Amino acid sequence: MPTTAPSGLSADLYELTMAAGYLETQFEARATFELFVRSLPPRRNFLVAAGLEQALEFLETVRFSPEDITYLRHHPAFARISGKFFDYLEAFRFSGDVWALPEGTVCFPGEPLLRITAPIAEAQILETALLATVSFQTMIASKAARVAHAAGGRPVVEFGTRRAHGMESGVLAARAAYIGGCLGTSNVRAGQLFDIPTYGTQAHSWIMAHDTEEEAFTQFMDIFPRHSVLLLDTYDVRAALEKVIAARRKPRGVRLDSGDVVADSVWARQRLDEAGWGDVEIFISGELDEVRISSLLESGARVDTFGVGTSLSTSSDAPSLSVLYKLVEVERGGEVREAAKFSAAKVTYPGCKQIYREIDSRGMYAGDVIALEEEGMSSEPLLVPAMRAGKRVGPRLRLVELQKLCQLQLERLPPDLRALDTPVKPYPVRHSARLEALLEEVRKRVARTVGRS
Amino acid sequence: MPTTAPSGLSADLYELTMAAGYLETQFEARATFELFVRSLPPRRNFLVAAGLEQALEFLETVRFSPEDITYLRHHPAFARISGKFFDYLEAFRFSGDVWALPEGTVCFPGEPLLRITAPIAEAQILETALLATVSFQTMIASKAARVAHAAGGRPVVEFGTRRAHGMESGVLAARAAYIGGCLGTSNVRAGQLFDIPTYGTQAHSWIMAHDTEEEAFTQFMDIFPRHSVLLLDTYDVRAALEKVIAARRKPRGVRLDSGDVVADSVWARQRLDEAGWGDVEIFISGELDEVRISSLLESGARVDTFGVGTSLSTSSDAPSLSVLYKLVEVERGGEVREAAKFSAAKVTYPGCKQIYREIDSRGMYAGDVIALEEEGMSSEPLLVPAMRAGKRVGPRLRLVELQKLCQLQLERLPPDLRALDTPVKPYPVRHSARLEALLEEVRKRVARTVGRS
Repeated sequence: MPTTAPSGLSADLYELTMAAGYLETQFEARATFELFVRSLPPRRNFLVAAGLEQALEFLETVRFSPEDITYLRHHPAFARISGKFFDYLEAFRFSGDVWALPEGTVCFPGEPLLRITAPIAEAQILETALLATVSFQTMIASKAARVAHAAGGRPVVEFGTRRAHGMESGVLAARAAYIGGCLGTSNVRAGQLFDIPTYGTQAHSWIMAHDTEEEAFTQFMDIFPRHSVLLLDTYDVRAALEKVIAARRKPRGVRLDSGDVVADSVWARQRLDEAGWGDVEIFISGELDEVRISSLLESGARVDTFGVGTSLSTSSDAPSLSVLYKLVEVERGGEVREAAKFSAAKVTYPGCKQIYREIDSRGMYAGDVIALEEEGMSSEPLLVPAMRAGKRVGPRLRLVELQKLCQLQLERLPPDLRALDTPVKPYPVRHSARLEALLEEVRKRVARTVGRS
Repeated sequence: MPTTAPSGLSADLYELTMAAGYLETQFEARATFELFVRSLPPRRNFLVAAGLEQALEFLETVRFSPEDITYLRHHPAFARISGKFFDYLEAFRFSGDVWALPEGTVCFPGEPLLRITAPIAEAQILETALLATVSFQTMIASKAARVAHAAGGRPVVEFGTRRAHGMESGVLAARAAYIGGCLGTSNVRAGQLFDIPTYGTQAHSWIMAHDTEEEAFTQFMDIFPRHSVLLLDTYDVRAALEKVIAARRKPRGVRLDSGDVVADSVWARQRLDEAGWGDVEIFISGELDEVRISSLLESGARVDTFGVGTSLSTSSDAPSLSVLYKLVEVERGGEVREAAKFSAAKVTYPGCKQIYREIDSRGMYAGDVIALEEEGMSSEPLLVPAMRAGKRVGPRLRLVELQKLCQLQLERLPPDLRALDTPVKPYPVRHSARLEALLEEVRKRVARTVGRS
């Protein structure tokens, strides 16, 4: 199979030139970078962390093959780079420490999803891959939590691979959507790789290939007696359902994929019930998202399961997160120096951080404090160790456990934050007094060296 | 390296259940499916076909491994499926014919990007992978053509991997953006795999890690004397540029990534020219898309190269295409029957199609006709053979040649279609009289069997 599989070259060119720069100038330092989202996309009240597993797998296995190194040796940017850098790449292994939010954790902008401490060249090389890996699944899990919420307890199956951003993206979207609360996916490869339940119905082509709809339905039920969800809208929904009922063969469910699904589902429920088929499910799909699901249910649609495609696999209303990977601390020659960026209203906070979540008397989440790691606070710390000296630490949970963790966290969010609309008051996230003080200290130090503040 | 690489299971579950259904019911037929986009997304006047190479690689190499088959054998949906189906999967090879638009072809909704004729089960199994593969790159190449147009001849480098939908998505986005007109990418893996020029500058972390900006700049120029594009906006753009000039070491360029880039670039150009550095380039990045680029240039920004990230790697304003894969013809027992779908305003045209492009007296594109393949027309046919009986046919062009092909096609589009705004009149695409007549014929046939029209 042709491969676009990642390697050490899965990086923006500047990560590699900067790494070469650090090596060539013998800039030996241990650096801490934090990966976080700058601000919530429109119509999001919270985020759900996801993608850590793939990020850790990448860190564990990333290598530069001989072909990778040959490619760089011939790249014009590296024309003057000494052999030492290429030897370094040949021996490259991730040797650093990682702290991260467990997948499924509800979180907010400014909070590190992942914090990495490693020799600076190493941490720099890994930037691009970590950003793409963690931000994509976090975006999808966050969307899935909204979609599942809108469905009000009815199952949602993720159906979006066909419009995902390539096949890998479809597989990872299925994974993240499951963490965020979907019942399963249509993507069989995702089902196999991650132990996600997979579901399917029929395509219009099955109906169109047969001489009549009756034949298409009965043939399918012969083969899949307990798994047939019959697609009604190829030609005419109501005529199709009458044929199913007339054939007196009970399917598992029927699917509406277009048309006036409110009216058709109400009518279908009534006809199915009249036929004594109260347990035949109605499956609705077709350009759904959380807003449409909510509106269908408000309008009285009768539906047992939703199939949601593009809006889940691409987070179509907000198809990227403003994710950043920022240097927060450099340790060089025994001296620790915190780093921050102050340009044009894009301030980043310095120092190694931890997130502490405050819980109210009813067990609900009351607010987060982003503090320096060394502070220690009485409330629950959210970042946990994930790798130490390049080796994974901590439990590896099954995907269904991550989904459960996410569910339990969502239940502890104030209800208006979980809802689809913008809450009256956003979730309170503040920086500790010591972190604010450190920011001012770094600001002053930088102002002195920059010459203008 | 852990893998999400595609296999035969890279499909929605229903593709596999339908395939099993065709095998179990001995429904032997040769089917033709067409993959096309239903309608243009907002703010698009045309599409640029891309992703065919990856689609053909998938078709050539797709297999079901023993693990894949074991997975399906244990899947509840296949509990009653006979061994014959699993034997079929074990021996599975794509054996069909493919016609397609060469990558880089300018095209429009309703026009097949790809047409596949194969035993029906085979063509069905491949649906999901073909959709995801072709639609993603087509979407990105189409976006890139707009971004490159807005830049008005100034080079655009694709910088978006970090916010792409996973690492593979970043690699494929870089490929498609290059076809659509980008100068290159920051993604080194894409550069290696597809022979795309790669570019990079510096990250803020390089500046922040050093004690002073002066040190950060000069160290980098020592290592990369001909490739240093210095990042000015970590603390204060103008103070940073004064330091560069004071150091009297000429960089290749300077980069502005935030702030008032119009005012700063005008000022920077003047200061660079005053220093006798008229050839030092100004590189602008930071949340750019075609609209922002156009507005920066109109406002008088002085810029030599644009770096465009998220909007290129995710097509953020239109992050999916309404791509479909529809059965258009079934040949069974020597009889050919055209297929169409008529439900709820979602009509698809039946029959094996070809696209003919009309050229006016100045050599400009004047309109397309979608016709039955057998019709033959005097104007240029756009779909070309890509596989015959499972083997690739036709030339394999280098990526730079696909980019050139795209460029030449874009130059033949009416100028208001190439522009960013909605044209007065969309590009004319009509169906041939014979195709319209066939649609009516199929509509009548279907109405008879459906019982309601």
